[in-house]
This record gives sequence, C-alpha cells and structure tokens, in this order.
Amino acid sequence: MSPLFHRLLIVGVGLIGGSLGLAAKARGLVEQVVGFGRTEANLKIALERGLIDAYTFDPAEAAQGTDCVLLAVPVQATGPAMQQFLPYLSPGCIVTDAGSVKAPVVATLESLVPDSLPCVAAHPIAGTENAGAGAAFATLFERRLCVLTPTARTNTDALARVRALWEGVGMRVEEMDPAIHDRILAQVSHLPHLIAFSVMNGLLQAFPPSRGNESSIRSERPDTFPLATRPQSDQVDPLVYAGSAFADLTRVAASPVEMWRDICLENRAALLAAISGFEAALTQMKAAVAEGDGQALSVDITRAREERQRLTRLREKE
Amino acid sequence: MSPLFHRLLIVGVGLIGGSLGLAAKARGLVEQVVGFGRTEANLKIALERGLIDAYTFDPAEAAQGTDCVLLAVPVQATGPAMQQFLPYLSPGCIVTDAGSVKAPVVATLESLVPDSLPCVAAHPIAGTENAGAGAAFATLFERRLCVLTPTARTNTDALARVRALWEGVGMRVEEMDPAIHDRILAQVSHLPHLIAFSVMNGLLQAFPPSRGNESSIRSERPDTFPLATRPQSDQVDPLVYAGSAFADLTRVAASPVEMWRDICLENRAALLAAISGFEAALTQMKAAVAEGDGQALSVDITRAREERQRLTRLREKE
Repeated sequence: MSPLFHRLLIVGVGLIGGSLGLAAKARGLVEQVVGFGRTEANLKIALERGLIDAYTFDPAEAAQGTDCVLLAVPVQATGPAMQQFLPYLSPGCIVTDAGSVKAPVVATLESLVPDSLPCVAAHPIAGTENAGAGAAFATLFERRLCVLTPTARTNTDALARVRALWEGVGMRVEEMDPAIHDRILAQVSHLPHLIAFSVMNGLLQAFPPSRGNESSIRSERPDTFPLATRPQSDQVDPLVYAGSAFADLTRVAASPVEMWRDICLENRAALLAAISGFEAALTQMKAAVAEGDGQALSVDITRAREERQRLTRLREKE
Repeated sequence: MSPLFHRLLIVGVGLIGGSLGLAAKARGLVEQVVGFGRTEANLKIALERGLIDAYTFDPAEAAQGTDCVLLAVPVQATGPAMQQFLPYLSPGCIVTDAGSVKAPVVATLESLVPDSLPCVAAHPIAGTENAGAGAAFATLFERRLCVLTPTARTNTDALARVRALWEGVGMRVEEMDPAIHDRILAQVSHLPHLIAFSVMNGLLQAFPPSRGNESSIRSERPDTFPLATRPQSDQVDPLVYAGSAFADLTRVAASPVEMWRDICLENRAALLAAISGFEAALTQMKAAVAEGDGQALSVDITRAREERQRLTRLREKE
C-alpha cells in the first residue's frame, strides 16, 4: 500500500500531534513527518521518541514538499499558525486540524486559506490530561471517534484522504455539522472540564492552604493524631481524604491551560448554555437536599444512574 | 496470630461489607463471618463467593456468639438495622459501621446502644460505583485511608480492635472528629457525586431522548452520515461523543440510589455549604467565559491545575 501522504507537517507536536505522528509512521500512512513548534525542548523529545523525523523553526523549510499540514495547536492559535505557512505551501497540500471547537476554526480556515489548499476540519475525540511530546503514545486514537466537519466548500478528495488518515490510526470517523459538533462537545467535554476546574477551585476556597506554614502542614500526613491534638478543619489537607471518585472526577483539571482557555473562549455560546443546563440540574438536587426531600433525590439519582449505566454499555460495545 | 474476632456479623453484604468479609477471612482476622441482609439472592452470591460463611434472616441467630457487628448499610438505615440486634447481643460485642457520614451515625449509635456494647464509628474511604455482593473484592481497601471518629465515650480497647481490623485488611487508619470528617467528605466525596448525577441530568435535559422512537435513534450509531442526512442535534445521542473525560467525571453517577440519597439527607448542612462553594467557583468561570476574559480563565485553570497535580503527587506517594 502506498502511503497517504509523502510529507506530513505537524504544527504543535503535543499529545495529539505527537501521537498522530507516531501512529501514522508506525502504520505506514506517511513517508515522513516534520515537526514545527515553539519550544525546541519539546521538539527534541518528539525527535528522540520517534514522533517526528525532523523539525524546523523555518516556515518555508517546513512547508517544502509537504502534502498535508496538521494544525494541532490551541484553537485560538489555529489561524496565526496557518498564516505563517501560506506563502510557502504547494497547491493541493491538504490543511487539517485537531481542535475541540469546530465552527470558529472552520470559519477561520475558510476565510484564510485559498481554494488551492483544501481544508478539512477534524476533531479526534481522544486525549488524556497530559500534555507535550512526552505524553504522546501510538495507541491514543484506537477505537475512539473522530468527527470531521466538512462544509459545502470542502473538497471531497481531501475529505476522503483525511478520513483515511484517522481511520488508518484506528479511529471510527463520522461527519457532522460544525455547529452541532460544538453544541454536543460543549456538553460532553467542555462543561466537564470547567466543572473539574471549579471543583478544585471550590475546594481551595473552602480549605485555603495555611499561610506561612503551607509546606509543613500540607505535605505531612500523620498516620494518627492523639485525641488531644486531633486536626481542626482549617489544619487539614482535604486532598488526603479524596478517594477515587474525586480523583476521577477531577482528573482533567490537570489539562493544559492555553488549550482550555481557548476552548472556553471559542465555544462561548454553547458552553454557556451547557453550564446553565448543568446549573439547573444541580440547583434541583440542592433544593431537594435543603428540603430533606428523599423522594426527589431518589428520582434524580435514579435517572442519572440509568443514563450513566447506558454510557457504560455503549463503551463496552466499542 | 489469634484472630481479632471469633464471629463477625456483617449487616449489609454489599461492596463494602462483602469486601471486608472476604479480606478479613483471607487474612485470618476473623474465624467466622455471618451475613445478614434483606435479599436472599444477594446473600447467596455472598456465600458462593466466600464473602461470608453463613447467613440468616433471624436477628437472634445472627447475634449469637458474635463479638463484632459491622453495620454496612445506607446511613439512614444504621439505627433501625442496629435496633433489631440489641436484645440479642452479648455484652462486650463491638458495634462498628462503614458509613460515609459520621456525626449523625455516631449520635444515633451512642443514643441507641448501651455502654455494654462499645461503639466505634468508621469510614473506610474506598469503593467503586458498583453495588452488591457481586461487586466485592478482597483488595478494595489496600493502601486506602480509613477514618475512625471516636468520641469521649469511646472505649479505647474497642477502638484499638477496630483499628486493627481495618489495618489488617491493608488500610491506613486515622482518627478524626465526626463533624470535621463530614465537612471534608462533603467536599471530596459527596459533592462530586452530586455533580456527577447533575451532569447526567443536565445532559438528558439538553438532549432529551426522542419520544416514541427512542430505542432506534439512541441505540444506533451509524459510522457515517451522507451529507444530505447529517444528524440534526435533536437526533443525536450525545453519549456517543463522550470521551474519557466525561466517562471518568460521571463514573460515580452509577452509584447506588439509596446509599446516596441517605448521604445527601444525613450530611445536609456540610453538603449545602460544599455545593455553594463549588457554585461560586463555577459562576466565576462562567462570568469569564461570558466576558471573553482569557486572563481570568487562565488564572482559574492554572490554580485548579496545580492543585490537581498536587493530588496526583499525593496519590503516587501512597
């Protein structure tokens, strides 16, 4: 089988870009992968780990011979990142991305990129809370879903090749309207991240680190306290008492700052709607707690539980 | 080493009770484990899986020869469950529990149980979203934390034996004031569960299952849609697009209904305070999203991220 692309340029060799480079090379989907990024330390790691075959900081050199550019940067950086390669890319080179917000990225790319460079926006729904080339791994995409968001302007050959790239690294691929994508992802991804951040921030507010002696108080976890010196609540590090529910719920709060700042800013309307819907559901449970209404709590918990069990069944089928 | 207890009576042979029975027997901490519960099907599973050595529905028989009673039932059932054994237990038999809320349980037990039956309240901070004897496993408690909440009335010998029981199955054990325990657990466990329930309920509200044709729409996941028939948002099952962030954040939404209804009702004040603190943190991020304030978002995300990374380091040390 001949490769899909001769030279794939990955702009932003982080978890997503780096994992794609590794997986695409391993499966013979590309002949060569060139990395482009901001920090040489990260690109060196990418080169050492074999995620890329070479890297450069020169856009002209990066663009040379490239037949596919993957923009794997925070979504607000997609336009500026693209702009620097525009003068140098050869006609027919496919432009694609991996951003978690699609409508504004599609609009940006379609306004910026000439028809000679076919654009196909993509969102591989895969990831971990870890960032950078050091976090990349070849199996990241396997059996996960990738959403492509073509428009009336999208070149069908380019669409088929981008589909083949993500299918080639093990993803199921589906097409969807960019705005619908953004509304759904606001609910199932962007809101959960905001919640995870807010759980951590709410906890910091409730149990502020002690001033002056933070390190001694918060790093020590005595195995026991004599009765006379049992901890007072303002001396306690609540994270010591966190079980797996808390750890799992907040896992993605460790996600990269710029990436999530940009997603919040770019998917504003859908995210605000998702937050409001969640707030309404939480307010309803809060009222039931305040009123001691066990019946209402049972109804809410049962409904949530059944839907979550449906997710477990869906994931088992994948 | 002689066993800690000759006969341990486990009232409620679910995930916690059943796992303790299995682990305590495996480590030789108890000679015999007797199960007591509401449904014979569950007790049969417990017997077949070796979580218990016998079971009965007769409180008098259950109490006979028992030198430790573990009440592993939803917290509001602790008092009623205890009451039925009171006429039959021999003086010196230790009464303990495994509830996630401590102050009301301690108050209930101390008002109900005579001094001849020493009470030691405990909260082994371990669990999964799964319930029942079928979900029990022997390593559930290993390296996790167990909080004991003794009071001035607590018998120190009984306290030492209950500590030895939980240490014996691999837990680190710590003592704490019941009210402080409840305030901390509201933050790191009870609030996260309410959030997980509310995420599922908010999503159901935003994407209601289609009426009449729910099964066909929501169980099918086509691999692709021709452009002409791309899904409209009200035909989409959002759970299909959920990644690991959503799955992990909502994992505990599948937790048992009665258990969580009771925790919500019994830890009302601390839980309401925790919800309010979280709501304030979320409101702050929501305002930053609405105002497009990237700087404020970066501050909130960075603070949350650093604290979550601290949790990762704490858990790696365990």
